[in-house]
Amino acid sequence: MGSFSVTPWNVNGVIDYNLFAKESGLSLIDDKLKERLRKHVGKLHYLIERNIFYAHRQLDWLLDEYEKGNKFYVYTGISPSGTMTLGHLLPFTLAQWLQEKFDCEVYIQIPDEEKFLARQGLDLDEMHKLAYVDLLHIISLGFKENKTKVFIDTDYAGHLYKQAVRVAKHITFSAVKDAFGIGSDANIGWIFYTSMQAVPAFLKSVEEGRNVPCLIPLGIDQDVHFRLARDAISKLGYYKPAIMHSKFLPSLNGSSKMSSSEAINTIYLSDNEETVRKKISRALTGQQPTAELQKKYGGDPEKCVVCQYYKYFFEPDDKKLEEIFERERNGTMLAGEHKAELADAINAFLAKHRELMHKYESRIDKFIVRD
Amino acid sequence: MGSFSVTPWNVNGVIDYNLFAKESGLSLIDDKLKERLRKHVGKLHYLIERNIFYAHRQLDWLLDEYEKGNKFYVYTGISPSGTMTLGHLLPFTLAQWLQEKFDCEVYIQIPDEEKFLARQGLDLDEMHKLAYVDLLHIISLGFKENKTKVFIDTDYAGHLYKQAVRVAKHITFSAVKDAFGIGSDANIGWIFYTSMQAVPAFLKSVEEGRNVPCLIPLGIDQDVHFRLARDAISKLGYYKPAIMHSKFLPSLNGSSKMSSSEAINTIYLSDNEETVRKKISRALTGQQPTAELQKKYGGDPEKCVVCQYYKYFFEPDDKKLEEIFERERNGTMLAGEHKAELADAINAFLAKHRELMHKYESRIDKFIVRD
Repeated sequence: MGSFSVTPWNVNGVIDYNLFAKESGLSLIDDKLKERLRKHVGKLHYLIERNIFYAHRQLDWLLDEYEKGNKFYVYTGISPSGTMTLGHLLPFTLAQWLQEKFDCEVYIQIPDEEKFLARQGLDLDEMHKLAYVDLLHIISLGFKENKTKVFIDTDYAGHLYKQAVRVAKHITFSAVKDAFGIGSDANIGWIFYTSMQAVPAFLKSVEEGRNVPCLIPLGIDQDVHFRLARDAISKLGYYKPAIMHSKFLPSLNGSSKMSSSEAINTIYLSDNEETVRKKISRALTGQQPTAELQKKYGGDPEKCVVCQYYKYFFEPDDKKLEEIFERERNGTMLAGEHKAELADAINAFLAKHRELMHKYESRIDKFIVRD
Repeated sequence: MGSFSVTPWNVNGVIDYNLFAKESGLSLIDDKLKERLRKHVGKLHYLIERNIFYAHRQLDWLLDEYEKGNKFYVYTGISPSGTMTLGHLLPFTLAQWLQEKFDCEVYIQIPDEEKFLARQGLDLDEMHKLAYVDLLHIISLGFKENKTKVFIDTDYAGHLYKQAVRVAKHITFSAVKDAFGIGSDANIGWIFYTSMQAVPAFLKSVEEGRNVPCLIPLGIDQDVHFRLARDAISKLGYYKPAIMHSKFLPSLNGSSKMSSSEAINTIYLSDNEETVRKKISRALTGQQPTAELQKKYGGDPEKCVVCQYYKYFFEPDDKKLEEIFERERNGTMLAGEHKAELADAINAFLAKHRELMHKYESRIDKFIVRD
């Protein structure tokens, strides 16, 4: 896709998000759709307002159903890493907001087999352990325990495998090869995996014996799984899931995706205050080479990682965000101060997050479903 | 392989069993190995004595382990059809005998997803129902309920999937393609399936946290699954399973394998007396075109399906079998009488089998393990 490529296992180049949407057959979340959403929830989440969740598949259909009284549930997930980053939180942040606003159930899949199959040198039992670390991060965002089901694939395969088999029957190796760009030397577990990821998009319909609409907030790299699965799901007689697509939180050096494997350019949820300060002090800004020039010409907030972190996470107030952006543009914001303030904001967020994790730790089993 | 081909989903041509063994890297069960077996069990099962179970993989190693006090368990299985044939019973007959003689546990897998994935037009829930019919046939052969575990894949995936993933990581699509002769248009469930069939060959080792030798009696068409899986199982740190390979019960028209999809040339366990008589009356014999010529020149018991059915099933006594064969050879056996006697023997067996099924029906749940 032009000068960038996006798969669930690799993101390269500078992503042109509109081109990605166009070539993947996504619709943009436009003003009309935002207005329609506002009718149901009032103020939109800033992630939608700011076009961070910028594209969708049949969100309009989902709202049609909702307006007819056919409530939806939300499904999202994460392959366990044990080293969740700020960027990983985006779909969960939106999912939690959707749960609050639409009072909907949320299914969260932690596919502990995914990276084990897709990469070399990983241990499946280790992945399973890491799943618990990630899921504590996730539920601590404020999910409701009586409306949220979290499942780790190898603990829930009794519920997932049978349905995955039904999906798999409609997906050929050729299709997987084309969609993911993997070859004949790929292992057969990796090839099959996409059908496991498809299951939660219709599992509630299976459980209830009637069609229940599903909404999936995800990062754009995950869309390909559902591009493959949506037809299969439809052939099984279930609704195709609606999807909301998120851009990636940029890396601290300005590249398109914060990668959990590139420590220096990534803020982990486990980073301590000192580490955060160090990493942010090295972050790319949109500023001029010297304080003098910056004061004279100003910087570009769209290229400034510090500004972008405020936009994605640390300044939910649109007015205040615009003030930060304006100070960046007019040159009154100086890099050192700018970064120190962001580091403080991140550290305050992480401190509060850790506190919440302590609170949620003892309740973890109330969220998990097992075979 | 020469003028015949054998896959789990298709058998074509006239099988040269010795060539199959040679090209698949199997060893023959020779007199020396039989003698070694006799030391442990006394009289051998006629299926071994008559070279119907004629080949093996590391059965000698299995006996080494057994002699060191390292007991083995037996694993076999069947993809559900609901229309089990006499031929389908061979591996189970041997497994039941092994259980009796070696007092070993038996694991029986009923992969209800297999044919669903490999063929068009099948319903997974229907396959699941048929699994119960088959498993009643199987346990009625006399398996011990406290030493036999039967599992239907979609009901036991919670135990199987995680281990299948570990196997799958070591098997590429290329390997599956070469082994099974399936192409890129195959669905990804079918491609993955072989790793599910591999799991029971080391599941007991997983359960017990120590290596337990496994012996798999199977029809030669199933060997390919383990040709692929044995290396993967070994890489996971478990013993490669030992295997005993059975020839196929010939079809009533003399072709190599009794096929459950070719009704007229196949004896189903559900056939009634009249049907059995009709089918057997049409069976191929090794006899001359007329009674006159038969009396003069005699027939060939190796080509006579009737004689072969005595050999495979209905005359366990070697002396009596030789008498039947001799009467065929010397022309004193006439086709009509020969067939009528076989039909009676089959009907007596099926009547007794149905009686046993009634006895076992209420105990079925004592054999099944579920997630």
